[in-house]
Amino acid sequence: MKRILLLGATGSIGLQTVDVIEQHPDLFTLVGVCAGTQTEVIKDIVKKHPSIEVVGMATPIEVDNFAGEVFIGDTCMVDCIQNVEYDILVNAVVGFRGLKPTLASLEKGIDVALANKESLVAGGMLVRETLQRTGTKLYPIDSEHSAIFQCLQGNARGDIKRLIITASGGSFRDKTRDELGNVTVEQTLNHPNWSMGKRITVDSATMVNKGFEVIEAHFLFDLGYDQIDVVLHKESVVHSMVEYNDNAVIAQMGSADMRLPIQYALCYPDRPVLKEDRPYDMTKTHDLHFKEMDFDRYPMCRLAYEVGRKEGNLGAVFNGADEQAVQLFLEEKISFLQIEESIQKAIENATYISNPTLEELEESDLKARAFVKSLWY
Amino acid sequence: MKRILLLGATGSIGLQTVDVIEQHPDLFTLVGVCAGTQTEVIKDIVKKHPSIEVVGMATPIEVDNFAGEVFIGDTCMVDCIQNVEYDILVNAVVGFRGLKPTLASLEKGIDVALANKESLVAGGMLVRETLQRTGTKLYPIDSEHSAIFQCLQGNARGDIKRLIITASGGSFRDKTRDELGNVTVEQTLNHPNWSMGKRITVDSATMVNKGFEVIEAHFLFDLGYDQIDVVLHKESVVHSMVEYNDNAVIAQMGSADMRLPIQYALCYPDRPVLKEDRPYDMTKTHDLHFKEMDFDRYPMCRLAYEVGRKEGNLGAVFNGADEQAVQLFLEEKISFLQIEESIQKAIENATYISNPTLEELEESDLKARAFVKSLWY
Repeated sequence: MKRILLLGATGSIGLQTVDVIEQHPDLFTLVGVCAGTQTEVIKDIVKKHPSIEVVGMATPIEVDNFAGEVFIGDTCMVDCIQNVEYDILVNAVVGFRGLKPTLASLEKGIDVALANKESLVAGGMLVRETLQRTGTKLYPIDSEHSAIFQCLQGNARGDIKRLIITASGGSFRDKTRDELGNVTVEQTLNHPNWSMGKRITVDSATMVNKGFEVIEAHFLFDLGYDQIDVVLHKESVVHSMVEYNDNAVIAQMGSADMRLPIQYALCYPDRPVLKEDRPYDMTKTHDLHFKEMDFDRYPMCRLAYEVGRKEGNLGAVFNGADEQAVQLFLEEKISFLQIEESIQKAIENATYISNPTLEELEESDLKARAFVKSLWY
Repeated sequence: MKRILLLGATGSIGLQTVDVIEQHPDLFTLVGVCAGTQTEVIKDIVKKHPSIEVVGMATPIEVDNFAGEVFIGDTCMVDCIQNVEYDILVNAVVGFRGLKPTLASLEKGIDVALANKESLVAGGMLVRETLQRTGTKLYPIDSEHSAIFQCLQGNARGDIKRLIITASGGSFRDKTRDELGNVTVEQTLNHPNWSMGKRITVDSATMVNKGFEVIEAHFLFDLGYDQIDVVLHKESVVHSMVEYNDNAVIAQMGSADMRLPIQYALCYPDRPVLKEDRPYDMTKTHDLHFKEMDFDRYPMCRLAYEVGRKEGNLGAVFNGADEQAVQLFLEEKISFLQIEESIQKAIENATYISNPTLEELEESDLKARAFVKSLWY
C-alpha cells in the first residue's frame, strides 16, 4: 500500500490523480492534499478519503469532522511534506511555486512523481544535485516524458541515439505567424487534442510548453540537448519515442488520458488495469502524421534549446516571464504574440547567474515577472 | 565474443546475418555455415571468415584451403550442431526442415535465434517442451516478433492485454478476392514493402505468413490466441505492438531492414550501432494507416487461428500443404487461389494427432504434401 501526498489536488492533474487512487484502493492511500483556493473541492476529497492526515491550502479553510492537521498559507506544501509520513509525493502544482516542495520531498529522502514542469525548467540544476546527493528518484507525469520513460525500459542508456518528443502544434498549428496577430484568448484555449489547465493550453500554442519539455527531458533522462528532438505530430497519439543506435524506434501510443502517465508513475514498473471509456484503438482513429519541427514558426521552442544549453538562472527567467506574460494575456492586457516578445526581452535583459541558489532563482523569477509587467505598463 | 553457427547462410536472412556479424568483429565470430545448393556463395563466406570450423551443404561441395570439417546431405545441419562449439544458433532455414536443427540445438543446451517459422508453426509443442526441459531460450528473428519482444522489455507478463501484429497485406492488398483469380507469379513476387525470399513473399500475399506469425507469437510469448490480434498496416513501419492493461500501446518502428531484428536477437538486450543507409525517419515517410483485419479477405489468417487453437499435428499439415502448394504455384502448375484451396482441403483431410512425436510430424508433413500434389494431378 503506497501512501500518497498530493500537491495541486484541485487542478486537472490533481483530480485525475485522485481518480487513479480511487481506482486502486488496494494499492494506494491518499494521506494528504494541498491546493490553492478551491476549498469546496478539497472538502469533497477529504470527505471521500478518511485516510487523509494533512491538508494544506493557500487560503483559509475549515474542514468539518477532520481530525488531521490543516496548514494555511505560502508554506503549506512544505509544512505538509514535513508533517506526514508518505511514500511518494505527487507534485501537480502549476508554476514556479512547485520547485520548493519538490526539493523539500527529495531532501526528506522521498521520491516525487512530477507533473510540475517548473521544478526542472527553473530549478533543474538544484533538483539534479539533490537527487544525486539523496539517492531519490523522479517519476515523470507528463504524457511525453512518461512515454519516453516507458520506451526506455529494458534498454541501456548508452544505446540511446535520441529522444523524440512529439508536439501537437497547439491551438494554432494551422495558422502562419502572420495570422497570429489578433487571435483571442478563447481561440487559444481551444486545444484540438487535450483538455488541460489554462496556462498549459496557452503554452502549447506558443510551444513554450514543448520547449519546457525539452529542458525537462534533459534533466529527467540525463541526455545532452543534441540527443533531444521535437517532431510535429498533430494527432497526439504517439506520445513520444526513443530512437536507439540500432535504428529501432520505440514509441508509446495511447489516447489523450493523463491518468495513464499518472498511474505509471505511481505503479512503476507495473501496469494494473486502468478503466477508460475509450482506450486508443489504432483502427478507429486518424492516420498518423509526422512533420519536422519548424523553429521559425515556433521560436519559443528554439529559445528553449538556447536557454537549456546555457543553464544557470535562465530557465527561471524563461519560466517567470512566461507565467507573467500568460497571465497578462489571459487578462486580455497583451496580445498572443506579445507573450513571446515578453519572454524574449526578459531573457535578453536578465543578469546571468551560472550556479544559482534557490534564493537566487526566486529572485530571478520575481525580476522576470516585474520586467514583463514593466514592458506593458 | 559470441560464436555463431548459421543455418540457411545463403538465403536472404542468412546473408544479412553475415553482414551483421561482419559489422561487429569485436562481438561475433562465425564458426559454422550451412546451406542447400549455393556452393559458390558458401565458398565466398568461408574465404572471408577463417574462423569457420564446419560447413554443411545439401549438395556436394569442395572448399579450397579449408581445414575444418564438411558435412554433406540431409543430416548436415544436425552434424554441424553436434561437431562445433558455439554460443548461439541462427536458424534461417526456410521450411519444415528447419525444425530438426532447432530441436537439436536446444537439446544440446544452446539458445536459438529463430528465423525458421516452421519450427514453431509445425513443431511448436515439441519446441516448447524442449525449451522448458533444457532451460534454453529462443530469440525471434522476424520483424514482427522482434518488435513484440522489444516492446515487452521492462514489463510484466501479467500486465499484457494483447499483442498486435501488423500486416502489410502483401502484394495484392488493393485487390478484392474476385480480382485474385488470374494473378501471375511475377505479380505475386512484387511485394510493396519488403524484399524477401520467394516463398515468404507468396505467403505474405495469401497471409499464410501472417497466420504463421500468430502461431509463432503464441509459442514465443506463451499467450493465448485471444490475446494475439492482427491489424492491417500497409506502410510496414510499425513492426508490431503490445497493448498493456493500463491501455498503453508500445510500438517498435523502423525501416524494412531485417538486420535490426537479427542484431537484436544476437546482442539482446544491447543495441550497438547498426550501419544503415536510410534509417527510418518519421518526418520523411508516409503517413501511418491502421485498419481492422479482414478475415473474409484473408481466410488463411482465420484458418491459422483455428489450426493454432487445435494444436496437435495440424500446424505441420498447414505448413506442409502450404510449402507444396506454393512450390506448385511458383512452377505455374496451380493458380494463386488454389494455394488456399490446397491448404484448406489438406487440413480437412488430415488425421488429427493430439500429441505428435517428431516422426509423426514428419509423416504429417509428407502426407500433406502428397495430398496437395494428388489434388492437382
